[in-house]
Amino acid sequence: MTAAAAVGALEATKDAAAPGSDDGPVLLKGCEAIAEAAIRAGVDAYFAYPITPQTDIPEYLAEHMPPLGKTFTQANSEISAINMVYGAAGAGLRVMTSSSSPGISLKQEGISYIAGAELPCVIVNVMRGGPGLGTVYGSQEDYWQSVKGGGHGGYRMPVMAPATVQECADLTMLCFRLADLYRTPTLLCADGTLGQMWENVRFKPMDNSGLPPKDWTTTGTRGKRKPNLVNSIIIEPPELEAHNRVLLAKAAKMEREEQRWESFRTEDAELVIVAFGLTGRIARTAVEALRAAGRKVGLLRPISLFPFPTDGFRPLAKKLRRYLVVEMNGGQMVEDVKRTLFDLGCLDPVTFYGRLGGVIPTPEEIAEVVVREFAQGGAR
Amino acid sequence: MTAAAAVGALEATKDAAAPGSDDGPVLLKGCEAIAEAAIRAGVDAYFAYPITPQTDIPEYLAEHMPPLGKTFTQANSEISAINMVYGAAGAGLRVMTSSSSPGISLKQEGISYIAGAELPCVIVNVMRGGPGLGTVYGSQEDYWQSVKGGGHGGYRMPVMAPATVQECADLTMLCFRLADLYRTPTLLCADGTLGQMWENVRFKPMDNSGLPPKDWTTTGTRGKRKPNLVNSIIIEPPELEAHNRVLLAKAAKMEREEQRWESFRTEDAELVIVAFGLTGRIARTAVEALRAAGRKVGLLRPISLFPFPTDGFRPLAKKLRRYLVVEMNGGQMVEDVKRTLFDLGCLDPVTFYGRLGGVIPTPEEIAEVVVREFAQGGAR
Amino acid sequence: MTAAAAVGALEATKDAAAPGSDDGPVLLKGCEAIAEAAIRAGVDAYFAYPITPQTDIPEYLAEHMPPLGKTFTQANSEISAINMVYGAAGAGLRVMTSSSSPGISLKQEGISYIAGAELPCVIVNVMRGGPGLGTVYGSQEDYWQSVKGGGHGGYRMPVMAPATVQECADLTMLCFRLADLYRTPTLLCADGTLGQMWENVRFKPMDNSGLPPKDWTTTGTRGKRKPNLVNSIIIEPPELEAHNRVLLAKAAKMEREEQRWESFRTEDAELVIVAFGLTGRIARTAVEALRAAGRKVGLLRPISLFPFPTDGFRPLAKKLRRYLVVEMNGGQMVEDVKRTLFDLGCLDPVTFYGRLGGVIPTPEEIAEVVVREFAQGGAR
Amino acid sequence: MTAAAAVGALEATKDAAAPGSDDGPVLLKGCEAIAEAAIRAGVDAYFAYPITPQTDIPEYLAEHMPPLGKTFTQANSEISAINMVYGAAGAGLRVMTSSSSPGISLKQEGISYIAGAELPCVIVNVMRGGPGLGTVYGSQEDYWQSVKGGGHGGYRMPVMAPATVQECADLTMLCFRLADLYRTPTLLCADGTLGQMWENVRFKPMDNSGLPPKDWTTTGTRGKRKPNLVNSIIIEPPELEAHNRVLLAKAAKMEREEQRWESFRTEDAELVIVAFGLTGRIARTAVEALRAAGRKVGLLRPISLFPFPTDGFRPLAKKLRRYLVVEMNGGQMVEDVKRTLFDLGCLDPVTFYGRLGGVIPTPEEIAEVVVREFAQGGAR
Repeated sequence: MTAAAAVGALEATKDAAAPGSDDGPVLLKGCEAIAEAAIRAGVDAYFAYPITPQTDIPEYLAEHMPPLGKTFTQANSEISAINMVYGAAGAGLRVMTSSSSPGISLKQEGISYIAGAELPCVIVNVMRGGPGLGTVYGSQEDYWQSVKGGGHGGYRMPVMAPATVQECADLTMLCFRLADLYRTPTLLCADGTLGQMWENVRFKPMDNSGLPPKDWTTTGTRGKRKPNLVNSIIIEPPELEAHNRVLLAKAAKMEREEQRWESFRTEDAELVIVAFGLTGRIARTAVEALRAAGRKVGLLRPISLFPFPTDGFRPLAKKLRRYLVVEMNGGQMVEDVKRTLFDLGCLDPVTFYGRLGGVIPTPEEIAEVVVREFAQGGAR
Repeated sequence: MTAAAAVGALEATKDAAAPGSDDGPVLLKGCEAIAEAAIRAGVDAYFAYPITPQTDIPEYLAEHMPPLGKTFTQANSEISAINMVYGAAGAGLRVMTSSSSPGISLKQEGISYIAGAELPCVIVNVMRGGPGLGTVYGSQEDYWQSVKGGGHGGYRMPVMAPATVQECADLTMLCFRLADLYRTPTLLCADGTLGQMWENVRFKPMDNSGLPPKDWTTTGTRGKRKPNLVNSIIIEPPELEAHNRVLLAKAAKMEREEQRWESFRTEDAELVIVAFGLTGRIARTAVEALRAAGRKVGLLRPISLFPFPTDGFRPLAKKLRRYLVVEMNGGQMVEDVKRTLFDLGCLDPVTFYGRLGGVIPTPEEIAEVVVREFAQGGAR
Repeated sequence: MTAAAAVGALEATKDAAAPGSDDGPVLLKGCEAIAEAAIRAGVDAYFAYPITPQTDIPEYLAEHMPPLGKTFTQANSEISAINMVYGAAGAGLRVMTSSSSPGISLKQEGISYIAGAELPCVIVNVMRGGPGLGTVYGSQEDYWQSVKGGGHGGYRMPVMAPATVQECADLTMLCFRLADLYRTPTLLCADGTLGQMWENVRFKPMDNSGLPPKDWTTTGTRGKRKPNLVNSIIIEPPELEAHNRVLLAKAAKMEREEQRWESFRTEDAELVIVAFGLTGRIARTAVEALRAAGRKVGLLRPISLFPFPTDGFRPLAKKLRRYLVVEMNGGQMVEDVKRTLFDLGCLDPVTFYGRLGGVIPTPEEIAEVVVREFAQGGAR
Repeated sequence: MTAAAAVGALEATKDAAAPGSDDGPVLLKGCEAIAEAAIRAGVDAYFAYPITPQTDIPEYLAEHMPPLGKTFTQANSEISAINMVYGAAGAGLRVMTSSSSPGISLKQEGISYIAGAELPCVIVNVMRGGPGLGTVYGSQEDYWQSVKGGGHGGYRMPVMAPATVQECADLTMLCFRLADLYRTPTLLCADGTLGQMWENVRFKPMDNSGLPPKDWTTTGTRGKRKPNLVNSIIIEPPELEAHNRVLLAKAAKMEREEQRWESFRTEDAELVIVAFGLTGRIARTAVEALRAAGRKVGLLRPISLFPFPTDGFRPLAKKLRRYLVVEMNGGQMVEDVKRTLFDLGCLDPVTFYGRLGGVIPTPEEIAEVVVREFAQGGAR
């Protein structure tokens, strides 16, 4: 069985489709689902510079946005693009950019500025293998950059990791919602393979309920009110500290209210695989095969990488299980798993299995690692 | 007592001065010590764009490099600068760039390219408060960006955090050494206050012993050998995976051989403060005051942020101590402390105390937090 | 009498208002008239970077284009802007950029590319004093750059110089028409003072009659036709020569068909002032005063700087007149006047009077120069 | 006979080799001769971005400057390069940049700034065919851009056009001399074919005699004098006018003192070919062939394009000759020929013959045009 064959339908996740949606399913690539979801979310403006493997997003939007009177701009660099996002977000527009790994690195200064200025926007990273130019094949090697703030200054932002084309659509809409709800940049962190994968998608209506008014935009006062100011510069340390405590409080609120994950047969599991995105859905196929063979195995798939789904681990902790973290990188999320277990007062063993540079692990491969873990893991 | 007054002499650290060095002490700012150390380390070329509070570095080098026949170039942007570093490093030169937080974000793509291409260079970040433009005052808010790879692709590089002007000099030289030893970018991660602080420095000779020959440079073959290739693009995933395993092996070697830290009165300590850089030296003053008052308190000051000094924690672990992590940020290194304790099989309580946005904690303030911790922490 | 007071209404010029136009007059600045005319000409997209004294143009368009579903983009540099113009023109859009002198210099490479690729667009230069940063006050110091091709490669393009706010509107529309008619960039060359001057404008309908179909655009073939190619690279010299002969033939056609000028009381004039733009209208006031005093003086005001209005000189040549060329620069158009007289077989004396660096000559000042010329010029 | 075969040795020109120079001849390409001459002229710093057909210049300098302790920097764009030139010139260094046509267009803003700030530097344009990307083959299509100021603001600078590799060397040195003598940018305007042509060169010593002291540089006052200011911004029009009159006076001085040309058998000529650079040397071969056939033909080859060699025309004017202007463009210098004849009170007929897009005319071709001219030109 190949990795591609292992890609089956996933059950509905926490933010599943609203029943009664009358949109029929459409067959789309992951990248296209992201683009169409952005349009349905009411994106006003999109700014980006092309890079494989995410170019299907601007290609789709270049065709579909202008007829709707929306602004599609291919900027002359990734840096231009993110700063155009900064400007448009400051004017109150619903705005998005997208890129792949090297291009996302170029945006780090801009993202930090947007985070500092508390502006809503959606950034999409369709990850490819790195470091450097690396490969155009998909990977998960940008986990750290995504969740620890590749940019300076220690800001946090919601990071969502889809595992299906349906989730590409749903989480894009969620990112727009969270952006406005928290006045924050949000990151959709997909991987290149998912971006190129075709599946049926059913679009749900955008949920704009309860969003705060955008009374902070800089769109001209026409002499009728005091000017708003959108900036990220606060020279005096006590003032900047107060500002940063506001940002920390928002992050804490996200940690309380925005954790998202999928748990699959974890209740009685003796070993829990932790994997996100594409690796998560492959691991699920491995779990199904292992269960069929009588192994007590489960899957915990983080959907929100930030906030990290501590609550998903809470019911599992302190029960002497084993954890196997599977990533398409050299071991990044595994650190958050260990830290989370530490916070839950739990020293259950954690093993890491990774493939690098765009290589996708197969379900069989993961299953073999699990079997080996069981063999070794009789005692900690 | 103010934070500035708390800045006392620190005991010798692991890479202390070579006895018999005949250079007398000179009074320098932290930034100047970094610059002078780079010159004594034999830096061939320096490329950067100005930004406060690190501009003393280019100012010093602009004056002192050209008379030595060395290349000083003010590039037209941070991105130009890091790519000039990339080119010069590929030609085998000893090369450096420096910036402060927003400028370092702009360099993230370039750093990832240099890491992928396995080129030696030294990057200096004289951290200021963020996110965004933030303030020009010093901070430690770039810990994550520094050690988790602000750039894409999950590379690792040695990250050294000085706490004194003497260490600014010593660790700059060490960064040049490690760069060549491991063929890797290295990061000197100072904070803005340290960069502006005056202290006596005694320069040691650069240690070039045992460095591998640079037989991989692209300096022209003159038809006498096969051309070398310096690049970070490896399209086929199995080849990139093999390459990335080489990078991981180098990181593992760094973790075995390059951990650096300062331990101060930790042996019998019931509470250990963990703090790096400027915060570390302030915490040391707090420890001295607390010890004078009969409190069993110690300090573990990571000098290498990557590799994180797990070995410094090893003798302390599993002895039912408490840890207080103090940072000038919202809580970043504290995650590595927790993960490290988890790896050491230890669930000792960890508390975080942070100041943000350029505010510097005083020794009294830290001492108060410690006293409060003791009061609360009678039992876990 | 001041220069400002000298600004009177000018008689209708060659491309005067269509009778029966039902638009009433509106009071606008020159820059706003250009912007509004662009909108009425059906501009689809505008790309620019701000610079004084032309920023009223993007300010006006930023407000009025988006509600019409038109693309207004502030690029991140003048170079980005002109290359966005290049791209949008290649896709068949009606497109414009604007800047002031230093910004126009930055666009020279892009303009040459657009000329080489034979794409229609409108470039507006609201001239300020130079060279270098110079001043923000208006000047005519970019005549050479405008008409001799500031860019490389010897291309030609129509260059129109308005003298009134009405002409700002009319000639903007004409530039859009000529751009499409000849598949060429066109330049509206106004000066900074005119751009800031308020006058009544009456907008005429855009004349799109007889424009060729845009069958050369690169907008996607959808598999139904052979792809078009828009480029300026033609490596083989014989092919490039053939291409350049096409460009020369277009320039020759412009010289036959697109000369525009205003003649005022030249028939019996013994001295003819030649002046364009703002200087032209000031000179006209001087002519009126001199005529009132019995001096036989006239004005020839070039409206098209390229093609230079040779036909305006033709009826005057070989009649032993004198010419006084007045410019707000050090003497640029005067060279074209001399060359034109040479081509007409005429050696009538030509004198130059110029003010520099943003200084505006007054009508009195010009009149004095004329009187002095008469005194000296009894014999050649 | 081909154009290449027509390239013979030219007689000594006005700035001919100093007798007694002990440097033997060396065989070099035109580009290399420019580079070597720059080194011998004492160039301190060179900044550029590669483009065909001038890349031999940076290639040569990249090898030879660093061992001399000189600064060679490949900038990240042409715009970076010219602004680095601006900065280094302001610090009093002898400095050069080079490019080919599109790259020179990108430098126009920077050149105007340097001219406005009155800074000495040498700019080399190894012209290729345009407009746009055009071809990499040589041309003379940038005459207008070179002599009429491609940049805004109407500045003038010395423009020298070599016809031999020897002149490539000599005129490069002259450009450095004139730059310092007049505090001005200077332009060496070669064409791509000459840049790639191999000939013997004999280097003469750099003539630094009589150059003014550089007391205006911004190199730090160390508290001992008032700071110098290097800038091109002068906001108030009367002050900018005064400044621009200084620039005009310098240009007038150049016109009096720096005209350079070659006259070949013009004394009794009934037809004078006017051609510069490569076209000039080809025309000379044509003249030799025509003289051998009994035709009274001569050559006037402008070496300084600005100042235009009016004095070369003075002895020829008003003698009822014919002029044939030959250029590798669509007719640019011909305008200056006509204007010059007008200024000399002369209406002798002027004909133009041009090849475009990188096509080089042969001597036979030029001779044929001359014969046809004689046939037609019996009467004016």
